Amino acid sequence: MKEFDFELEMKVRDYECDIQGIVNNANYQHYLEHCRHRFLNTAQLDFAGLHNEGIDAVVIRAELDYKFPLRPNDDFLVRLKMGRQGRLRMIFDQEIVRKEDEKLIVKACITGVLTKNGRPVSPDILMEKFNRIGIEFPEV
Amino acid sequence: MKEFDFELEMKVRDYECDIQGIVNNANYQHYLEHCRHRFLNTAQLDFAGLHNEGIDAVVIRAELDYKFPLRPNDDFLVRLKMGRQGRLRMIFDQEIVRKEDEKLIVKACITGVLTKNGRPVSPDILMEKFNRIGIEFPEV
Amino acid sequence: MKEFDFELEMKVRDYECDIQGIVNNANYQHYLEHCRHRFLNTAQLDFAGLHNEGIDAVVIRAELDYKFPLRPNDDFLVRLKMGRQGRLRMIFDQEIVRKEDEKLIVKACITGVLTKNGRPVSPDILMEKFNRIGIEFPEV
Amino acid sequence: MKEFDFELEMKVRDYECDIQGIVNNANYQHYLEHCRHRFLNTAQLDFAGLHNEGIDAVVIRAELDYKFPLRPNDDFLVRLKMGRQGRLRMIFDQEIVRKEDEKLIVKACITGVLTKNGRPVSPDILMEKFNRIGIEFPEV
Repeated sequence: MKEFDFELEMKVRDYECDIQGIVNNANYQHYLEHCRHRFLNTAQLDFAGLHNEGIDAVVIRAELDYKFPLRPNDDFLVRLKMGRQGRLRMIFDQEIVRKEDEKLIVKACITGVLTKNGRPVSPDILMEKFNRIGIEFPEV
Repeated sequence: MKEFDFELEMKVRDYECDIQGIVNNANYQHYLEHCRHRFLNTAQLDFAGLHNEGIDAVVIRAELDYKFPLRPNDDFLVRLKMGRQGRLRMIFDQEIVRKEDEKLIVKACITGVLTKNGRPVSPDILMEKFNRIGIEFPEV
Repeated sequence: MKEFDFELEMKVRDYECDIQGIVNNANYQHYLEHCRHRFLNTAQLDFAGLHNEGIDAVVIRAELDYKFPLRPNDDFLVRLKMGRQGRLRMIFDQEIVRKEDEKLIVKACITGVLTKNGRPVSPDILMEKFNRIGIEFPEV
Repeated sequence: MKEFDFELEMKVRDYECDIQGIVNNANYQHYLEHCRHRFLNTAQLDFAGLHNEGIDAVVIRAELDYKFPLRPNDDFLVRLKMGRQGRLRMIFDQEIVRKEDEKLIVKACITGVLTKNGRPVSPDILMEKFNRIGIEFPEV
């Protein structure tokens, strides 16, 4: 069974739903992003703080499989597992499941890189912070 | 050279940009969706009208390659080419380019299906409307 | 001292912040709306469910005083007190405060009405549900 | 008759509509903001550029009267007239009307101030740029 590095509980807000009465597709990217940024927080890192130091986490590819829609007031869990690919890429395996029954809502694979002053740099500076709190990132 | 079925010009709005000063990743999905929905309009179809008849266009998979970010006030073009896959799937090849220099911003492949009262149906009802205005959808 | 009928704790998400590094003005309306809708839930009511019965809660006026901005990761509280005005109007006195120090962020007064199949109706149908759980709405 | 300083044509995007099938209240603030920022552009000013110089335009109060909802694909016009109040305040009288019949959708009064490195400054630096292109701001 896959083991996740981080899990965040969230709840659908009505304004995130569109004419079809279900969460709009783009908002799942917001949920996934919020989960990744909160994961950074666990290692005393934060997106805005990194940006102010000239370091930006940038998504270069997103694959999302929409399995089942979330509806108003649904409680859900956003999970992630982080890995490395080559020298520069961070791979986030993510999933969103409905809380009450673990029904799979979205499965996603997000590829990110770090840039410093606009140029790609090794994600080691992030990795070290996570290693300190006992999280390792396998090559994937 | 790939030929597109539809092209829409848009402009970045400041509120679509985040702390990094660039368009937030989720908003590109909004741009791509808006382009698909406007494409429906060219065949006298519309997303809200279809929904009221019980017909929903649903995205089941999205692949997005983020090549270069859009910035405040950038003018850009969103393009699509539509194809079919098997009996049920509609495939939208999409790209976003910066208007001034055709710089590639996002390349996307969106897979959708039609549902009627919640059950998958053939997209023929849409296809026929497009055929009437001279647009054909190749098997991909 | 003003006593509130309902309070909701929330946290700023990075994508809600704009180029200035603070929460975009429009998002405070989202926070205030989410609080009102969650308040409905406490009386076994919900916005989407009401809509499906032809009953829509509609905002007709919003006054917002922006006192101080929220920043990434800030925890905050959204509060509301509900009253009536005349035969048709519901008045929501709302405020957003930063959690750590009760710093006032936004003060808002939102006026809403109920419509049934598009025509204004008395909010009594909502009020009764709240009365049952011990919440009364003073004339304001 | 009131004369406006600026008018911007826009079109409703489906994702801006919520469960009720109409544009979500918060999005009108986005429309109004986009109109104000585009107005800045007419005087060779821009929101992001100002921010990079340490100058931020900040909304301190918004009053919005929601008269009639916009629906999917509606074309609409956003207008503004700018005035001054006292030494520091800029007042934006704004309205949104449906294009086809000038039906009033939203009437708004937005109060803003300029800050430089976080402290309020006179809006004269903006005003001068507008004066150069023949736009004057009356005391209101």
